Amino acid sequence: MTDEPRTRLFVDSPLAEGLSVGLDHERAHFLRHVLRLDRGDAVAVFNGRDGEWLALIDGFGKGWCSLAVRHQRLPQSGEPDLWLLFAPLKKARIDFVAEKATEMGVSRLWPVFTRRTDPNRVNLDRLRAHAVEASEQCERLTVPDLSEPVPLSRALADWPEGRTLFLCAESGAARPVAEAMRERGRGPAALLIGPEGGFEKSELDEISKLSFVVPVGLGPRILRADTAVVAALACWQSLAGDWTADGGELRPPFRSPVEPTV
Amino acid sequence: MTDEPRTRLFVDSPLAEGLSVGLDHERAHFLRHVLRLDRGDAVAVFNGRDGEWLALIDGFGKGWCSLAVRHQRLPQSGEPDLWLLFAPLKKARIDFVAEKATEMGVSRLWPVFTRRTDPNRVNLDRLRAHAVEASEQCERLTVPDLSEPVPLSRALADWPEGRTLFLCAESGAARPVAEAMRERGRGPAALLIGPEGGFEKSELDEISKLSFVVPVGLGPRILRADTAVVAALACWQSLAGDWTADGGELRPPFRSPVEPTV
Repeated sequence: MTDEPRTRLFVDSPLAEGLSVGLDHERAHFLRHVLRLDRGDAVAVFNGRDGEWLALIDGFGKGWCSLAVRHQRLPQSGEPDLWLLFAPLKKARIDFVAEKATEMGVSRLWPVFTRRTDPNRVNLDRLRAHAVEASEQCERLTVPDLSEPVPLSRALADWPEGRTLFLCAESGAARPVAEAMRERGRGPAALLIGPEGGFEKSELDEISKLSFVVPVGLGPRILRADTAVVAALACWQSLAGDWTADGGELRPPFRSPVEPTV
Repeated sequence: MTDEPRTRLFVDSPLAEGLSVGLDHERAHFLRHVLRLDRGDAVAVFNGRDGEWLALIDGFGKGWCSLAVRHQRLPQSGEPDLWLLFAPLKKARIDFVAEKATEMGVSRLWPVFTRRTDPNRVNLDRLRAHAVEASEQCERLTVPDLSEPVPLSRALADWPEGRTLFLCAESGAARPVAEAMRERGRGPAALLIGPEGGFEKSELDEISKLSFVVPVGLGPRILRADTAVVAALACWQSLAGDWTADGGELRPPFRSPVEPTV
């Protein structure tokens, strides 16, 4: 028994001292049979609202596990207001987008259908599972919102005032990404990454004309859509997001390796 | 028969008008049986030295194909001098690093063993194949150099004068990445991404003390090593590399989709 949490879980329940949290079959199994934890072992939990808490395993039953919430480890903190609009990709690459975008700190993941989007249906449950797992691993205190897929034209028709949309297009007129993002600075933003085959030219022209859209260029090479997601998010976070702070207490603490006990 | 190239291939041979290029079994098979090309069909070829050329398929034989080189499509152009030092990762993730780093324009890929690197051997042929394929797809005119893996300490002991090494460490004192990279500006650079489990603390302290090393922070979340590769490269390219130009002729041309001919 140790107070150093052995894993980190996202839960839906409220978190406060003295509360209990019930875990479903899958997570109970994971704690007991994959991590081989026992009563009294510590885990970290977060729900996107109450910060991160230390909880102790209270008991296991058939298909469940209960946790006793002890003390807060981290307060809930603000996060950048950054949306990612992306055209659905093939299975492995869309999983990748959900995982990477979560690590990169997007607040909202929004699949949008462009004219050339492969009309495969999007499995939102699967995307959400990837986002949850990535949040748990990357030490985020939230899980990004996941919006129902809509045609891109509809997303753009209802666009909220004051939110800049950086259009990452591989051709056409565009500004150097760092210059454009630095100039816009902080404030609500969104990135739009096109489908594998690119946008249609007429579509690109229409989008570029919208007042809230800033077309930005990601260099002379053709990036795959999933590469462009990480690259564009990195540019924004480093220039206008939460990578701009000098760290200090925001930097993760140094961790000793988990040595296998022989 | 059309002059619009149907694919893009990296070759070792010299390229100039009137020369012939022989392709090996694998590529001959790819052109003939995967892409179903025939004599007279056009492909684009590049060798990292002579720019990109249009070539016509001249003939197929058992296990070979020959190309007749016609005219230059693009002159060879300079590329940023950016190395990536990375600890080898598990199979799928190291393939990913080779692919993504190539798209992101690194000039040299260099696997280095840190104290906590899993001592799996690195398959350089496999890494090179991924880099070649990525270069072909992303329209680069070169393939990044691939260096023999060495212990990190040896790479640092022989460090070339005047090349800044940005250390992407998930903990410890570090500067915001955009600030540090903007300040150093253009000029030879390298990025060092640690292993999955992170650096050892003593190792991190030693590296940070070296005069050519600048520790930079990639935000408050813990990034996977492969995410950090793309993110850090995007920061450098957008601030000091070839994403800083306003594009113009450097931007890829708009491409019509390849419509299936029914």
